[in-house]
Amino acid sequence: MSRRYAILAPGTFATGRAKTAHGVIAYADDATVAVIDADHAGRRVRDVVPYLACDAPIVATVRDALQYAPTSLLVGVAPQGGALPESWRGEIVAALDAGLEVVSGLHQILGDDPEFVAARKRNASIWDVRIPPPVPLFSGSAYDVAARVVLTVGSDCAVGKMTAALELTRAARARGMRAAFAASGQTGIMIAGNGIAIDRVIADFASGAAEQIVVEAAAEADLVFVEGQGGINHPAFAPVTLALIYGAAPDALVLVHEPPRSVMDTYGTPLLPYRALIRTYEALCASVKPAKVVGVVLNTRALDEATARAAIASAAEETGLPAADLVRFGSAEFYDAIAPAISGKAAPLARGTPG
Amino acid sequence: MSRRYAILAPGTFATGRAKTAHGVIAYADDATVAVIDADHAGRRVRDVVPYLACDAPIVATVRDALQYAPTSLLVGVAPQGGALPESWRGEIVAALDAGLEVVSGLHQILGDDPEFVAARKRNASIWDVRIPPPVPLFSGSAYDVAARVVLTVGSDCAVGKMTAALELTRAARARGMRAAFAASGQTGIMIAGNGIAIDRVIADFASGAAEQIVVEAAAEADLVFVEGQGGINHPAFAPVTLALIYGAAPDALVLVHEPPRSVMDTYGTPLLPYRALIRTYEALCASVKPAKVVGVVLNTRALDEATARAAIASAAEETGLPAADLVRFGSAEFYDAIAPAISGKAAPLARGTPG
Repeated sequence: MSRRYAILAPGTFATGRAKTAHGVIAYADDATVAVIDADHAGRRVRDVVPYLACDAPIVATVRDALQYAPTSLLVGVAPQGGALPESWRGEIVAALDAGLEVVSGLHQILGDDPEFVAARKRNASIWDVRIPPPVPLFSGSAYDVAARVVLTVGSDCAVGKMTAALELTRAARARGMRAAFAASGQTGIMIAGNGIAIDRVIADFASGAAEQIVVEAAAEADLVFVEGQGGINHPAFAPVTLALIYGAAPDALVLVHEPPRSVMDTYGTPLLPYRALIRTYEALCASVKPAKVVGVVLNTRALDEATARAAIASAAEETGLPAADLVRFGSAEFYDAIAPAISGKAAPLARGTPG
Repeated sequence: MSRRYAILAPGTFATGRAKTAHGVIAYADDATVAVIDADHAGRRVRDVVPYLACDAPIVATVRDALQYAPTSLLVGVAPQGGALPESWRGEIVAALDAGLEVVSGLHQILGDDPEFVAARKRNASIWDVRIPPPVPLFSGSAYDVAARVVLTVGSDCAVGKMTAALELTRAARARGMRAAFAASGQTGIMIAGNGIAIDRVIADFASGAAEQIVVEAAAEADLVFVEGQGGINHPAFAPVTLALIYGAAPDALVLVHEPPRSVMDTYGTPLLPYRALIRTYEALCASVKPAKVVGVVLNTRALDEATARAAIASAAEETGLPAADLVRFGSAEFYDAIAPAISGKAAPLARGTPG
């Protein structure tokens, strides 16, 4: 199904809190036909968030958005605590009453809400993106996909692993490759229209879920870029990171970092330096299915241009690998630089292989 | 609450399928007052499974067990697939009708079964051990416990990590320590009477669950032995392993292995050799909160005595660490050998620590 999104972002579209809305506009194949934010009604997306280069109109209400024939209302903001603000309920009811699909990544499950269930008309439905489908245990089927699989791994949460995987997918397609993006988190799923929020899967099945997104993406691609999660020394989220490393069974890794970040937000755990990160990720892969880090992607949005270029040069020098900020300076050169290193399939260790 | 268990193990008590029953009899503080297995009715536990050294009677039915005043019926067998055999339903109904607590580690949730819910009389209740309580995200509170924390880590699943933690808890108590066992899996929970099945927690919260079992155990102990799970290069279960490494925030690790196992059952992934295991576990700890492997515990049940002693000598030589089979040859000497290495608290890396 190709969706036409109206994106709900009341009072927030111009801010970082609308990160999900911005990600979907920037990367989804699905069209955004309108944004709902009364603060900017009458303007266009590009007037409010120039880098999105999108002409969709901004309107005040769901009712106003219907003239642009959306198929779906996407909740484009993650409110503090993940709960739905009371003031948005009427807009969601209006969408369901108009027969739209409502797409939500909130912790609060909209499909369990009696008011919303009752409001559905015609083909209206609710897609709570965070609810994982039933997934099997890891089976080893990821070892058998013909596509080459590249996983983005990071120094921490929220450094740009999803964006790196999306940019690389685009760059590969621009070079004529059959490339696919495999989504492992809420915004990635909204962008791709499929995927599994690995962090919401029961721990025993997290590897199996990572395997499943790869097997599905590989069915129609020769090259799969998998959205990584967390960071390998993140005290809370590293189990999800490791589920992707083993479950996605990558043939190569791309390391992502946001300079100058050096410690994790909540815990004060220091980020590992590039070489320690590479050593750690490669050692874990080597114990199951060998894969090397083939390049370093930096998210330099916090740096001025000169500092950004210096950070990129320094990453390349420290690691001996291609390094780039794909959003700021383009992805073609970096993709071409890593392409030879992602041209082969790796095999898992097997019975009798020395560990 | 101190429980008096009647253990349900129809047709299986003499076999390895009754592993949960045997574990509870061998290690739980709660008394086992009867075992239910018509195949051996009239005999005593020690007549059927000599190493358990337990005089409890074996009877044919729950009704027969009631004369020994049990408080609880424990489902002591994990049937293929985790579902409840139809033929056991009558026995569970009889227990609930008699006002007993029913304790189950089956995948199938007994508390959701209308027949069982309806059968409860007086104080009867159902404890589905695998259902985790609500747990918070990892918070760092495990860093603040005063108790020293020792985690068992393994070369694979089902090598003896729970047994090693239980034996070390006993050995420490025998030396006068206030020691506690922290259970992270189904049989461990039945033995301890508390704990959380980490593998059933949503992946994002698995570290938080591991932290919680440590914080709870540490409230009444100076030394906590945490039951580990999985193995760090297990493609399916390593995320749970890592949740325990970061969430339990151990001060020291004990490595557990079952020779001569060299590959994992389902996937054929080779087990890592001792030194690679130690390097991998210590490197991960070093990236968040440093901890060393202080000893190697072997489960030599598959080996004859001479081969077992040779395997232990070889593990000690390869690693330079104390090595022993605690069940077969006793735990006091090993405990004394590692005691100096588990006498201090470690601190997590903090803001400004070089990573």
